[in-house]
Amino acid sequence: MQRVHVNNLMAKDNNNNNKKMVEAITSMGEDFAQWYTDVVKKAELIDYSSVKGCLIIKPYGYAIWENIQHELDRRFKETGVENVYMPLFIPESLLEKEKDHVEGFAPEVAWVTQGGLQPLQEKLCVRPTSETLFCDFYKNLIQSYRDLPKVYNQWCSVVRWEKETRPFLRSREFLWQEGHTIHATEEQAEARTVQMLNLYADFCEDFLAIPVVRGQKTEKEKFAGAEATYTIEALMHDGKALQSGTSHNFGDGFARAFGIQYADKNNQLQYAHQTSWGVSTRIIGAIIMVHGDDSGLVLPPRVAPTQVMVIPVQMQKEGVLEKATELYNRIAKVARTKIDDSDKTPGWKFADCEMRGIPVRVELGPKDIEAGHCVIVRRDTREKIVVDLDEIETKIPEILETIQKDMFERAKAHRDSHIWDAHNYEELKDIAANKPGFIRAMWCEDRACEEKIKDELAVSSRCMPFNDQEHISDVCVCCGKPAKKLVYWGKAY
Amino acid sequence: MQRVHVNNLMAKDNNNNNKKMVEAITSMGEDFAQWYTDVVKKAELIDYSSVKGCLIIKPYGYAIWENIQHELDRRFKETGVENVYMPLFIPESLLEKEKDHVEGFAPEVAWVTQGGLQPLQEKLCVRPTSETLFCDFYKNLIQSYRDLPKVYNQWCSVVRWEKETRPFLRSREFLWQEGHTIHATEEQAEARTVQMLNLYADFCEDFLAIPVVRGQKTEKEKFAGAEATYTIEALMHDGKALQSGTSHNFGDGFARAFGIQYADKNNQLQYAHQTSWGVSTRIIGAIIMVHGDDSGLVLPPRVAPTQVMVIPVQMQKEGVLEKATELYNRIAKVARTKIDDSDKTPGWKFADCEMRGIPVRVELGPKDIEAGHCVIVRRDTREKIVVDLDEIETKIPEILETIQKDMFERAKAHRDSHIWDAHNYEELKDIAANKPGFIRAMWCEDRACEEKIKDELAVSSRCMPFNDQEHISDVCVCCGKPAKKLVYWGKAY
Repeated sequence: MQRVHVNNLMAKDNNNNNKKMVEAITSMGEDFAQWYTDVVKKAELIDYSSVKGCLIIKPYGYAIWENIQHELDRRFKETGVENVYMPLFIPESLLEKEKDHVEGFAPEVAWVTQGGLQPLQEKLCVRPTSETLFCDFYKNLIQSYRDLPKVYNQWCSVVRWEKETRPFLRSREFLWQEGHTIHATEEQAEARTVQMLNLYADFCEDFLAIPVVRGQKTEKEKFAGAEATYTIEALMHDGKALQSGTSHNFGDGFARAFGIQYADKNNQLQYAHQTSWGVSTRIIGAIIMVHGDDSGLVLPPRVAPTQVMVIPVQMQKEGVLEKATELYNRIAKVARTKIDDSDKTPGWKFADCEMRGIPVRVELGPKDIEAGHCVIVRRDTREKIVVDLDEIETKIPEILETIQKDMFERAKAHRDSHIWDAHNYEELKDIAANKPGFIRAMWCEDRACEEKIKDELAVSSRCMPFNDQEHISDVCVCCGKPAKKLVYWGKAY
Repeated sequence: MQRVHVNNLMAKDNNNNNKKMVEAITSMGEDFAQWYTDVVKKAELIDYSSVKGCLIIKPYGYAIWENIQHELDRRFKETGVENVYMPLFIPESLLEKEKDHVEGFAPEVAWVTQGGLQPLQEKLCVRPTSETLFCDFYKNLIQSYRDLPKVYNQWCSVVRWEKETRPFLRSREFLWQEGHTIHATEEQAEARTVQMLNLYADFCEDFLAIPVVRGQKTEKEKFAGAEATYTIEALMHDGKALQSGTSHNFGDGFARAFGIQYADKNNQLQYAHQTSWGVSTRIIGAIIMVHGDDSGLVLPPRVAPTQVMVIPVQMQKEGVLEKATELYNRIAKVARTKIDDSDKTPGWKFADCEMRGIPVRVELGPKDIEAGHCVIVRRDTREKIVVDLDEIETKIPEILETIQKDMFERAKAHRDSHIWDAHNYEELKDIAANKPGFIRAMWCEDRACEEKIKDELAVSSRCMPFNDQEHISDVCVCCGKPAKKLVYWGKAY
């Protein structure tokens, strides 16, 4: 009798705790921005620091980044990328060498003016990106066509002095990788630019279960100093777009500004051609906003630091903890697994697993043990699956694969059901005001039209897609002149 | 005949090239400092950047660092370490909170005074180390004894505005890891401090084949703000010491300065106890100076980015390149392997392998193919080993293991033959002037003696060893008063 009484108390406490944890997150529908902020804090991804706009990435958030790093780095190296490390600081005179580039970045860099007790003779900016450092390096490294290509990358942090900041999406310091390559010809540089954009897109779709649109940025939106910028654009749950990775072809613009020349096979001096490409911790923001729900994070299994959480139920009963530990040891051989044998209630543990987006939880109580099975609960659908204990090593990987695939399909269905076509300005205006998502509309390539749309309708051009260049109309959605490109427009983070 | 003529030309060119490559390095005996600088440049570990004292770590140097990172990170995680990322910037007011700490670091930090186009209200230093940031974080994170311990680490770069700089050994920016832990009790903090020092020592000995002395720093040499600093000290080929990793016990000093308190089991507020520990890219300097020789780098197999280089000899002969590629494919399954099938001469390739310290090169020419064997040349001893092609998959790992072991034994023999005992000041003076290496001598624990020795004899106290506290004399080597500790003294980088 006493035992039952305790169980009742636990069940009650359990409900209260569940309720409290859920109450602590604002619902998406009520206030998406607040929901996002709640999730990054409650799932213990980040904390705020004493420096405005600079985040602390906590162990759980950093473990997600480590998985991203590890997988991207592996894919990079398969294509011949080598990692290097360039200095944190850029002398002012170096930053100023490429005109468009300095105009793009100078207004938002942090300046070091004092080293030790002395003022510096020349101020140094904390790198906002490292094109200028790589150019300065390549200038001495590259002499002959035999020295080309160089396909270098670095993992580091960069600083941009943003006024408005948001965790992962826009912070004054963020972690990223920046690849910087140099090639003999225009064609080789273009091929690498496209190759890396496709690598990013495949990574997002395969590993993060995030469908992306691949395309080219307009002149207005391209990177400062680039000839062409390619981008992958993802759609968040609230219908806003997030630029999730970019790849730039610089042509020989930086090479001319920095004097990077090589002797070709005929011993003629030629300017080299360069690219750069980057993905940052911003992508963690995309994972949250594409997959999350009102109970917290939902992580795709491939990127989840913990894929399976084993939770013993009625742990005080004899043999339960022992059996659960045995089960944990078996599952740990096939997936990244933890067991929660703390003295918290099962209900608290369930809610905690949900908040952290752990793809699968495995419940095991006395009745399950008696029946020779356990109960697997999918985080994404909350589906309960009863699995024979004998089959656990084969079932867990299957279920994780299914979740990964289903999450992608669901995100894709959501994205595809939020793409709207606008054939004229009235339609565009109506969609921009009332229908969250991507808007497909034709454009004349005139910057004035692009700026008018942005100013009046608060949507920006996201990209001119590679694979979707059908003409949905013959005229520009804005001015009515002949249309040249299909553009995806949208509100963006 | 023409073929022979070509071969003769190649042989000649080969000799010239060899000579040129070897001439390009100063010999160790002639000028050790210049030898070091030559090696870091010629082995393509680093390049100089436009910012004085800030290095470019090139792909080969960075690949060494990646191997170090990977192995250390694996060992850390086995002991429960979790990785995080803290901001790059520390507000001046935060840096100033712990008195000893700010006195130690303020004279050598870089200051950011401008963000974007505006001067900052409070200047920010670029982290020279992150104790203050971790304290500020822990202050809010830690409420109860249930929140302890936290065993966090970050991989990042730090900045110290040094006047004199040398590649890897002392640069204004360097890469490292810094662990910062927080515990309920003094005992737990002390145990973690010692655990990490031992982890570093084992890593150096097992992975880098560098024997180290483990010990405690004196009051004068300890870290700014620490109660105790433990260190591993390695001996370089020129007889100078290199501090290769440190672990600090802060007691509750930082906790008191930052107000980090937790409620214990009796709900009483207690100050927490902290540690920090770090290893940096400096350790690459140790690898170079412990193992290198007049032909360049010599890398221990476990840390070598390329463990085996296959070099086809007389590549123009039919079947050689094909057989060499076949051999390369087989070796690549058991070791990190490359094949050099460039159009350079074998002699150039041999010298290049030696410069880069690749542990094993495998030569395969027409005669070897005919005889069904290949020639393996050890980088460390230059020993040639003829190996049946059939046995290559078992022999290569064996030889790599032997090299690893032999390199450690050789470094240890060198170190042990350069430890000198001084029983009085005259002996100390003589050894300091004439015998490179560690000096063991007794000390009264009076700072005045330590400073006198440093000022007059230019040797500093390296550590009070843990495992070697025999009393080699009853009196201090300097003042003749009763001795308390055996100290290792030496000239240091």
